[in-house]
Amino acid sequence: MKTYPLYIAGLGKYLPQRRVHNAELEGQLGLPEGWIAKRTGVLERRYVDHETSVSMAVAAAKIAIEMAALELKDIDCIIGASAAPQQALPCTAALVQRALGAPDGGSMCFDLNATCLSFLLALQQAALLLEMGPYQHILIFSSEIVSVSLNPREPESYTLFGDGAAAVVVSKGTGAARLEGAAFQTFSSGADFTRVLGGGTLHHPNDPTTTFDMNSFEMDGPAIFKQATRLMNPMLERLFTQIGWNPEQIDAVIPHQASKHAMEQLTRRLGFLESQVFVNLERRGNCVAASIPLALVEAVEAGRLERGGRALLIGTAAGLTLGAVAITF
Amino acid sequence: MKTYPLYIAGLGKYLPQRRVHNAELEGQLGLPEGWIAKRTGVLERRYVDHETSVSMAVAAAKIAIEMAALELKDIDCIIGASAAPQQALPCTAALVQRALGAPDGGSMCFDLNATCLSFLLALQQAALLLEMGPYQHILIFSSEIVSVSLNPREPESYTLFGDGAAAVVVSKGTGAARLEGAAFQTFSSGADFTRVLGGGTLHHPNDPTTTFDMNSFEMDGPAIFKQATRLMNPMLERLFTQIGWNPEQIDAVIPHQASKHAMEQLTRRLGFLESQVFVNLERRGNCVAASIPLALVEAVEAGRLERGGRALLIGTAAGLTLGAVAITF
Repeated sequence: MKTYPLYIAGLGKYLPQRRVHNAELEGQLGLPEGWIAKRTGVLERRYVDHETSVSMAVAAAKIAIEMAALELKDIDCIIGASAAPQQALPCTAALVQRALGAPDGGSMCFDLNATCLSFLLALQQAALLLEMGPYQHILIFSSEIVSVSLNPREPESYTLFGDGAAAVVVSKGTGAARLEGAAFQTFSSGADFTRVLGGGTLHHPNDPTTTFDMNSFEMDGPAIFKQATRLMNPMLERLFTQIGWNPEQIDAVIPHQASKHAMEQLTRRLGFLESQVFVNLERRGNCVAASIPLALVEAVEAGRLERGGRALLIGTAAGLTLGAVAITF
Repeated sequence: MKTYPLYIAGLGKYLPQRRVHNAELEGQLGLPEGWIAKRTGVLERRYVDHETSVSMAVAAAKIAIEMAALELKDIDCIIGASAAPQQALPCTAALVQRALGAPDGGSMCFDLNATCLSFLLALQQAALLLEMGPYQHILIFSSEIVSVSLNPREPESYTLFGDGAAAVVVSKGTGAARLEGAAFQTFSSGADFTRVLGGGTLHHPNDPTTTFDMNSFEMDGPAIFKQATRLMNPMLERLFTQIGWNPEQIDAVIPHQASKHAMEQLTRRLGFLESQVFVNLERRGNCVAASIPLALVEAVEAGRLERGGRALLIGTAAGLTLGAVAITF
C-alpha cells in the first residue's frame, strides 16, 4: 500500500444551538433518572431546530476554508461524507457548493456513504484525487441530522445520537503530513445490526405500506460490540505492520464516538492508553458520520493533536464495516 | 493529470423481466398515441415487479465476475454507484456483498452518489484504489429502480425512465487498458433542474408534512439541455487537450441515455459521428446511474467497442454535474 501526501489545512465544526439534556429525554421516554448516562455515557447532545444538513455543512466549511487561508474559488472538489443526504437528489455536496456561494463549475461535487466511516473513506479518496490531479484543495464535510430518524420505541439508540457537522479542507502539501495507511473491511453478516429499512427503493416513502418504524434507526448495540471486539484487532495489527507503527507511537486515537463501551474497548482490548484516546461522547453523543471529524476538530482545538503528530482515526459503521486511517497531521 | 492502468475484466447487466410499452403509459396518463416516442425517443422500458436493487445488482455482478474469470473471494472492494439506495442504511454495497455470498470481511464496501454520473466517478476511484493497493479486483455496480419515484403529474419524466442494473469488475491489468483521463464539473446554479426534495433529512419520510410530490422525481429537461449545451464543449476540449485525443479517434462514445435531445446533441454540437455514438435509449429508457454502464455493456455485446479501443463515457447528472471519462478498453 502506498502512502500519499495529505495536509489537513483547515478544520471546522458546527453544533446546533439546541442542547438536549438527559433529563428531557428521560422525561419524554419515562426512563429512570440516570438511565441514559449509565447506559450510553452521553450527558447531552444537540438537536437541530432551524438548521439543515446543508446549513450546518456550510457553517463548518467556512471555518475550515478560512483556517486553510483559502478562498472559495480555490476549492476544486467537494465531497459529502454523511450517512443521510439532505434530499434524495441531487447530492448534498452540490447543494453545499451552491449554499457556500462557491463558483459555479469550479468544483466536482459528489457524496459517498459508508455510514459512520464515510469521513475516513473520503479522506482516503481525497488523498488519491490530490495525487491524480488536477485537484489541489478538497473540501470534505460530514453533516448529520440523526434526530429525525430516531425511534422512541428503541430508547438506547434514541438517547445515544446527536446532530452536528464537521468539515476539513485537505491539500497536497509538501511537509511531513501524509496519509500513512488505511484499512477497511465490511462484514455483511452484520448488515442487519444497524439499519434503516426505509428511505430507499425497497420501502419507498411513497409506498403506503412503508411504516414509521421502517424509516427509523434500528441498532443492535451488543451484537455490533461483540463482532467489533473480535474483528478490530486483527485488522489493526495488519495495518500497523504495513505502516510500521506501534500503538504507543500514536499521539491521538480519534475514534468514532459509537458508545461508551466502544470507547472503553479501545483502551481495554486494543492496548491504547486513556491519554491517547480522544472522547467527546458525553457532550456530543454519537453523530454518525460527523462523529469522527467532529472529534478530530475538537482534538485539535484541545491541543491533543499537533502538527507532525500521528493520529489514528478508527471506528465501526453499519455494514458492518470496520475502518482505520493513519495520518501524520 | 496522471493516467492509471484500468482493465475492465468483466461486464454484466440485468434487465427486469417486465417490459413496459408506450401504449401502456399513454393509456394510463391519457396521452395521445405516439406522444412518448416523439417527446422522449423511448419505445419501451423495463419496470421491476419482483426484483430489488440488490437482486438486480447481484445478477449483473455474477455475470461480470464470471466473465473476469474470478471467484467471489478475489473481489476486495465493492462500490455501489447508484442514485438511489435500497434502504437508507447500511450502504447498498454491503447488502450486495451479503446477497452475492462474497466472503465476510473479504471486501471494503461503500456507495457513492453523483446521480447519473455515479458510475463514472466510481470508475475513476477504482483506478485510484487499484493504484494505491492492496486492492486488486473491484466490483462496481449501478442498480436503479426509478419507477417507484416517478410522478404521473410530470408525464415527460414519468415516461422517460426505466429500471435496470449493470456491473463491471475492474483490475489493474498490465496491457494497454487505462483510465486516460476524467473531467467532472458541478454547476449548482442548476441544482433544482433535477431533484427529489424528499428522502433525506429535510423532508423526512416520517415527517407528516412530507408529500407524494416531494418524494417524486422532478426534472426541467429544457433547462438541463440548455445548460449542458453551453458547458459540455469547453469541458471536453480541455479533457481532449490533456489526454491528446481527437474526437475522431474515439471508437465508442458511450453517453448517459438522458433523452433523445441529449443524444442528438453529441452528434450535432460536439462533433461526433452517429457511428461513434452508442444509443440504447429506445429500449431501455434513461436508467439514471445504470444508464452509462448498461450502454457500455451493450456496446461491448454489440461489438461496438473492442479490446484496445478508445471509449469516451460522458453525461450529465443532477447537480448539475457534467462528466466525462476516457478509457482505453
